[in-house]
Amino acid sequence: MSISKPYLLFLGDVKDELAAKTAHGVLDWRPDWCLGQITLPGCQAHTSLPEMTVSEASEAGVRTMVIGCVNAGGVLPDHWIATIVAALNAGLDIAAGLHIQLGSIPAIAQAAEKNGGTLHDLRFTDVSFPTGKGENRSGKRLLTVGTDCSVGKKYAALALQQGMADRGLSSDFCATGQTGILIAERGIAIDSVISDFISGAAEHISPATKDDHWDVIEGQGSLLHPSYAGVSLGLLHGSQPDAFVVCHEPTRATMRGVATPIPTIQEIIDLTIRFGRLTNPDICCVGLAINTMMLSQNHAKNLIAELSEEHRLPATDPVRFGTDPIIDHMCAEFKLV
Amino acid sequence: MSISKPYLLFLGDVKDELAAKTAHGVLDWRPDWCLGQITLPGCQAHTSLPEMTVSEASEAGVRTMVIGCVNAGGVLPDHWIATIVAALNAGLDIAAGLHIQLGSIPAIAQAAEKNGGTLHDLRFTDVSFPTGKGENRSGKRLLTVGTDCSVGKKYAALALQQGMADRGLSSDFCATGQTGILIAERGIAIDSVISDFISGAAEHISPATKDDHWDVIEGQGSLLHPSYAGVSLGLLHGSQPDAFVVCHEPTRATMRGVATPIPTIQEIIDLTIRFGRLTNPDICCVGLAINTMMLSQNHAKNLIAELSEEHRLPATDPVRFGTDPIIDHMCAEFKLV
Repeated sequence: MSISKPYLLFLGDVKDELAAKTAHGVLDWRPDWCLGQITLPGCQAHTSLPEMTVSEASEAGVRTMVIGCVNAGGVLPDHWIATIVAALNAGLDIAAGLHIQLGSIPAIAQAAEKNGGTLHDLRFTDVSFPTGKGENRSGKRLLTVGTDCSVGKKYAALALQQGMADRGLSSDFCATGQTGILIAERGIAIDSVISDFISGAAEHISPATKDDHWDVIEGQGSLLHPSYAGVSLGLLHGSQPDAFVVCHEPTRATMRGVATPIPTIQEIIDLTIRFGRLTNPDICCVGLAINTMMLSQNHAKNLIAELSEEHRLPATDPVRFGTDPIIDHMCAEFKLV
Repeated sequence: MSISKPYLLFLGDVKDELAAKTAHGVLDWRPDWCLGQITLPGCQAHTSLPEMTVSEASEAGVRTMVIGCVNAGGVLPDHWIATIVAALNAGLDIAAGLHIQLGSIPAIAQAAEKNGGTLHDLRFTDVSFPTGKGENRSGKRLLTVGTDCSVGKKYAALALQQGMADRGLSSDFCATGQTGILIAERGIAIDSVISDFISGAAEHISPATKDDHWDVIEGQGSLLHPSYAGVSLGLLHGSQPDAFVVCHEPTRATMRGVATPIPTIQEIIDLTIRFGRLTNPDICCVGLAINTMMLSQNHAKNLIAELSEEHRLPATDPVRFGTDPIIDHMCAEFKLV
């Protein structure tokens, strides 16, 4: 996958920052690739980048407009189309992680055709997957799992992989969602796979590899989210992780988009082990990644210490305080470096 | 959905009877619709119907050839295509539940075009689903769940719905797989839905209805099958069943297509309740449907009595011994009729 850089990040008119998590993810992990943002009236999300029109972006050297926001279901609202067409008319390519292909919308297809623009559909793949085999394969795998959607599973996986690489451990980040794919420039959007093949696609994402290599796999959803648990479970079975990290956002009362209460960390640990054992009998939890973005520094440190003590596991906010506690524990547990 | 009858059942060259479960399902539940079978050399499955060529079938009045067999993944083997083309050339329509559309194969598309034949793709739907909402909806629901794939979840659901209707209870059978769809002539193949929408599709299958109406929903896979558990979990969450029946085939050691041991009935009860509570706090197990096809009459009766005693639940083989024990229990539990 090769998307022309730099990027203009489209934020639409989404109602909160979480809905623009693709834009934030790309900007946080690949800041050198991002030049500006573009919003529609009423947008409640914003980045640190300057606001630009598509013409200003084109003049500033932008090559691709990235749709950096989503609504539940990955649908493209009609009132976003004009901006996409304008971007194509200004000579930009478009990258999006929608559940429909950009080219299926006639106005967009025509504008791309007319201007020679490329449409990147991040959620689509040409690979056709088999059903999951459930057989043990070589190499090591770490999966990030969550008490909810949008709690930091991707950030934790990226930070952990970087931390492992910094210590000279052979490792890869395996993207399973549109933002991860934009950051890694490869991967499979697991929630876009036909459901019969979820675990087969997960097996494809982290294939057999060297015994001492770690695939660090971006988790999706939560085993206890009523909308997305099927994806989470298929990803768990196909990933057959040796190790997992539970990601948690401590200030939420209910799960993203529904009225269901947030489960406890312990429930997620128990269920992940119970189901994970089906394809990897040695699965174990190696730490907690606590997303403390909404907390003060002191509050965050105290909470992390409490949760670590309560669960007898290393805990950290991987973005705020680094990944050392978890990687130290993994090195001891798996006799690494 | 309207498929012209009667049918010729295509069994291909599959290696066992379970792989021809679509043919058996249609024949068992809709015998009046089926005139003959057609097999390829080496086929290990068979029905009680006479073997016919496509020309003989056409002369006998057959209107549609139903692909009555599957291989894992729902792929169409190349060597089945000639028979499908011959059937179209003989004036028949084709119905199939593959993961690809029949018309995507040029030889089949051309033959359909030339002969004016209709191609029915049972696993495809024009409906686009939202993500699951997880909200409580009116009406009652029963879901059949299993310790494995292909253990009798569809037969149990069909028999239970028939038994409920016989007692004057308002009820519908809700098909979630290709065979169920052929039998009911409506439904959604849940394993063909994009995985982000599994639970949303399940909500669509059994929508809000009258308080005293029961939707009896055909289950899929097993929560502990490493290839298909994601589908089973999404279906459970979206179905938000009030009641479930565990289906079990007691002679199997490992799960269908994999080396994983068959879980216990109790494990499936526990996990179904744990996850089912997320969208229906009152979920309860109302019985066991034991598929005793491989056992003698005496052995079957003894085993059913043992399992009923062990789990303190009504147990029966719904096909062999009827559904009264389970429906009696439901009537008491839910104060019906």
